[in-house]
Amino acid sequence: MRNTIDVCFSPALLHLYDLKDKVVVVIDILRASSTICTALHHGAKKVIPVETLEEAKSFQNNGHVVGAERGGKIVAGFKLGNSPFHYMNGKVKNKTVVLTTTNGTRAIKNSKEGLKVVVGAFLNLTSLCDWLKAQNENVLLLCAGWKDRFNLEDTLFAGAVVYHLKKDFDINYDATIAAEDLYACHKRKLLKTLKNSSHYQRLHKLGVEKDIKYCLRKDQTQVIPAWDGEGLVS
Amino acid sequence: MRNTIDVCFSPALLHLYDLKDKVVVVIDILRASSTICTALHHGAKKVIPVETLEEAKSFQNNGHVVGAERGGKIVAGFKLGNSPFHYMNGKVKNKTVVLTTTNGTRAIKNSKEGLKVVVGAFLNLTSLCDWLKAQNENVLLLCAGWKDRFNLEDTLFAGAVVYHLKKDFDINYDATIAAEDLYACHKRKLLKTLKNSSHYQRLHKLGVEKDIKYCLRKDQTQVIPAWDGEGLVS
Repeated sequence: MRNTIDVCFSPALLHLYDLKDKVVVVIDILRASSTICTALHHGAKKVIPVETLEEAKSFQNNGHVVGAERGGKIVAGFKLGNSPFHYMNGKVKNKTVVLTTTNGTRAIKNSKEGLKVVVGAFLNLTSLCDWLKAQNENVLLLCAGWKDRFNLEDTLFAGAVVYHLKKDFDINYDATIAAEDLYACHKRKLLKTLKNSSHYQRLHKLGVEKDIKYCLRKDQTQVIPAWDGEGLVS
Repeated sequence: MRNTIDVCFSPALLHLYDLKDKVVVVIDILRASSTICTALHHGAKKVIPVETLEEAKSFQNNGHVVGAERGGKIVAGFKLGNSPFHYMNGKVKNKTVVLTTTNGTRAIKNSKEGLKVVVGAFLNLTSLCDWLKAQNENVLLLCAGWKDRFNLEDTLFAGAVVYHLKKDFDINYDATIAAEDLYACHKRKLLKTLKNSSHYQRLHKLGVEKDIKYCLRKDQTQVIPAWDGEGLVS
């Protein structure tokens, strides 16, 4: 029997899946998973996701590099948010980064029962697919969504992974078929497709179109951020 | 401001929506919503959805026409299941039908807070769209799914409704965009598309391909099954 690949559209549906026999890929394209890949690619030692602003504040008071985002914006009292561009150019080299975001952080925390937990983004698409194939385990692609709602950018990325892996895995559920279908329909016009999406419009209003374009770039890094019990390491 | 149209992919995500200002359309294409449309079209006075087999049994003992389905099959001790063909040809004329099914019944019960609750199926697609336009209210299309999982046939139908109504409503969420997109991609080959889906394969094994083909026929009835506090009436 071949291994299976599943897509879960929302952390609120995660209870429907048994994580214990699955490698979980957490997906929050705009922007947590793209930012985590970027920080590790630029030399961060570890990215620790924390759920509350209080935890984030206490790490900041202890001198850590801390990013805090809510509703797409940097939280008052913090210098960094959830933009990948905040974590480049030597700013994070050999440092531990602490990150709290609206959706991605919680999705990572909720996946801890997985056999392994890694982070996926267009930025590491091909490396991630090669790595998943090499694991020889079942895979669950978990879309972080937006406040438990389905979102298009995470689904399109999950679809991209299924598109590349479907020859090697079995597909049991309709969410997986739908995600791959949506990606196959739109793979040549991802940005155009996302222009209708709610989060694109939310971020566009905040003036971070540059972030969106960057987060849709494929294969900018070979880093596979993996959960080590405390944070994500490459 | 125009009214909104939303799609909810699973009863497990229904808490994310405020039903009080929305007309809720419950969708369980294979087969509860198709069967309810069929029974009312063939003269049933009312279809009462019940959740448990015990309730269904007690209605049967009192002489009602009762259909009971679990996992796609007729439950032992009942004569009728969830096939639309069980509710045709004068069998239900002027009778009250009681129905308990795996997913559809619960979705209807969970929607009771809606402004109005109606049932949608390809069988009543055009009449339903005309009726929804005439209500001048917000609309939520609730996919019954399969045991709280996303399913393809309910999503394709929700997408068909959005496809027909998008000029008249505002779309706020990505699930609505994705459903319409999937329908737009596949509208000329619904049966072929569904052949990959989990429920098609489940029902196909049970030998009810005839049911599936029937449930994908558009505009076979003008009936709009509407919740009256106890059951669905036309």
